[in-house]
Amino acid sequence: MDTQDLTRLLHVKNNTKIVMLVADGLGGLPVEPGGPTELEAAATPNLDALAARGVSGLSIPIKPGITPGSGPGHLGLFGYDPLKYVIGRGVLEATGIGFHVGPDDVALRCNFCTLDDQGRITDRRAGRIPTEESAPLANMLNDKVKIPGIDVFVEPVKEHRFAVVFRAKGLGAAVDDTDPQKTGVPPLAPAAHDEPSRKTAKIAQEFYNQAVKLLAGQPKANGLTMRGFAVKPHIPTYEEVYGLQAAAIAVYPMYKGLAKLVGMEIIGTPATLEEEIDVLAGAWNDYDFFFVHFKYTDSRGEDGDFAAKVKMIEQFDAIVPRVTALKPDVLVVTGDHSTPAALAGHSWHPVPTLLVADHCRPDGCTTFGEKAAICGGLGQFEAVHLMPLALANAGRLEKFGA
Amino acid sequence: MDTQDLTRLLHVKNNTKIVMLVADGLGGLPVEPGGPTELEAAATPNLDALAARGVSGLSIPIKPGITPGSGPGHLGLFGYDPLKYVIGRGVLEATGIGFHVGPDDVALRCNFCTLDDQGRITDRRAGRIPTEESAPLANMLNDKVKIPGIDVFVEPVKEHRFAVVFRAKGLGAAVDDTDPQKTGVPPLAPAAHDEPSRKTAKIAQEFYNQAVKLLAGQPKANGLTMRGFAVKPHIPTYEEVYGLQAAAIAVYPMYKGLAKLVGMEIIGTPATLEEEIDVLAGAWNDYDFFFVHFKYTDSRGEDGDFAAKVKMIEQFDAIVPRVTALKPDVLVVTGDHSTPAALAGHSWHPVPTLLVADHCRPDGCTTFGEKAAICGGLGQFEAVHLMPLALANAGRLEKFGA
Repeated sequence: MDTQDLTRLLHVKNNTKIVMLVADGLGGLPVEPGGPTELEAAATPNLDALAARGVSGLSIPIKPGITPGSGPGHLGLFGYDPLKYVIGRGVLEATGIGFHVGPDDVALRCNFCTLDDQGRITDRRAGRIPTEESAPLANMLNDKVKIPGIDVFVEPVKEHRFAVVFRAKGLGAAVDDTDPQKTGVPPLAPAAHDEPSRKTAKIAQEFYNQAVKLLAGQPKANGLTMRGFAVKPHIPTYEEVYGLQAAAIAVYPMYKGLAKLVGMEIIGTPATLEEEIDVLAGAWNDYDFFFVHFKYTDSRGEDGDFAAKVKMIEQFDAIVPRVTALKPDVLVVTGDHSTPAALAGHSWHPVPTLLVADHCRPDGCTTFGEKAAICGGLGQFEAVHLMPLALANAGRLEKFGA
Repeated sequence: MDTQDLTRLLHVKNNTKIVMLVADGLGGLPVEPGGPTELEAAATPNLDALAARGVSGLSIPIKPGITPGSGPGHLGLFGYDPLKYVIGRGVLEATGIGFHVGPDDVALRCNFCTLDDQGRITDRRAGRIPTEESAPLANMLNDKVKIPGIDVFVEPVKEHRFAVVFRAKGLGAAVDDTDPQKTGVPPLAPAAHDEPSRKTAKIAQEFYNQAVKLLAGQPKANGLTMRGFAVKPHIPTYEEVYGLQAAAIAVYPMYKGLAKLVGMEIIGTPATLEEEIDVLAGAWNDYDFFFVHFKYTDSRGEDGDFAAKVKMIEQFDAIVPRVTALKPDVLVVTGDHSTPAALAGHSWHPVPTLLVADHCRPDGCTTFGEKAAICGGLGQFEAVHLMPLALANAGRLEKFGA
């Protein structure tokens, strides 16, 4: 039995509202010995007040030492064991551009590449062709490639990258990448490892043949490679495992896609955090659970810009009163992983997390930050435990056993 | 998927150096109410400085409340789930005396015993015969017992104890102990539980028959019992699961043997901790990872001698500057378990642990000790997570998922 087997068994319904505010890449590191992290450096009067009222801790996204991508990071926050529900690269890519991957789909990531007149790769990324040139080519393939009995979707992504989805019953995804990882040789033929995947490989080969004819004459993008063949894992919904009607509010397609994978409804089309909170307020009566995603803490961390990440955290802090004004029964503030500016990338460090509810057991924390959270009442815990804690604090879990 | 499945998938190679300093049985207990533990009582300026620079925590060797032997304790530190990789007693005994147990070996622990003229045991430990008398008898058996098609190794251990290894293809180890656990009856016949083990039981019976003839006339050690039949579990190497070229530096055969089980190379023949650090410095360019084992913290704990253990911890502290002078990218200081002098034996208490690296997230700890580590940034964690943390801090793990 894992934790979701328990929540599936024990959840009950009531009228409470749970809000999970996720500041992407929230956790950080000092940039000088003895210095503060980004969160500690930021002026966060509202988050500090929540820390004083609530209970704090440090969330381990996957396991100690493991740095998560956005996919596993969010699955963990949503309470799904990220080592059990592994989302393949192709599905993540399609999800990231807002494509709704279904149960009969095999999704893959493709690169445009440049071929010489012998069909050998001369540039694996087609000269990093700009999106405004590559997107029309992807759309053209989407219109023109026809494979009998199969729905083929070709979606632009960015520069040389695009996504392809084959839709038909019974397709496998155990197909090797066709990118030979070097130039001077042609792309590999798609090689399959089982019977359902041989069907996919045959479709992929046919797709390749048609595409190369359609791209003939293109100066840069006259070939393509295929990687990360994947099907969507079966993921039970929030309704099934928690009994929650859940809504997701996000600006970026990737996070909308991840939320959709667990059965959340994507609401609104906000472009800013302020607009996200508008959407939250507007839908307040319609859902039990709200996932609100704030991207820019991660973006500025990825840029390696400590001061800019501090500023994003302060923007995030500023909207807190609008959320608390809605009087959620349970408010969780966390991140899907750390993105320290010092590393200019995701990291393995635990993420400061707080939970505020009438019956949380407050600790001694009076500020929200990495060092303060070490002695918080939630301790250090794997992220998958956050949803059961939220449910419990919402009075939505019955006793286990008599 | 367990943590090693992740490290196997995610590890990359670089030029970093990781050092794991293990003070055996490091953790302790106060001997008077409100008093310090051994580590807290010791003057450890160098370890305290590391605690101030790095991140501290408490390592749970196996699971809370479980007291480990040296085998599981070290496997955990090495990142191998000690509940998955169970090393049988016979293999541990042979390993402990430096015998390299191979894939075709069944190893067992034997006791010399005293038999009366009816073949009934009168003393299960042969009067605790001293090693100088028992070792020649073991060596004699090693020379004289001959079983066609089987290599038989008989190795002295200590007092009435010796080790036996049968080497041949296809031997099982599901053979019951022959020690009846009481006197007045003869040793039991070796009873097997499956076909490959019946082969082993037959060999064991033949060994017994020849040995008893060879020991006839001995005043004390004229019989023997056999216990802990075991084969070496398949354990993947450090190279396989971490991509690390690993070296082990230890004085005692047991720890060399445990390190060899996970594929570390045993380097040098140091007799003191100072000499161990000489070996470390001399091999610095040849390996990625160094396990350095210090035995005497455990020994003095086992003696129940608080003051002597304090002194050993101070000796351990004194060599720290020689290690930091080598500038390891990641330095871990820990123990395989606690050995409180108050208990004169191994215990279940979590072990003070620290990790120093450029991108560890410092905490508020300024000393190295049990009480300080409670609020350390590593929190309380199972020992198996230490290796992934070390790898992450060495930049040797890629992101999991996109």
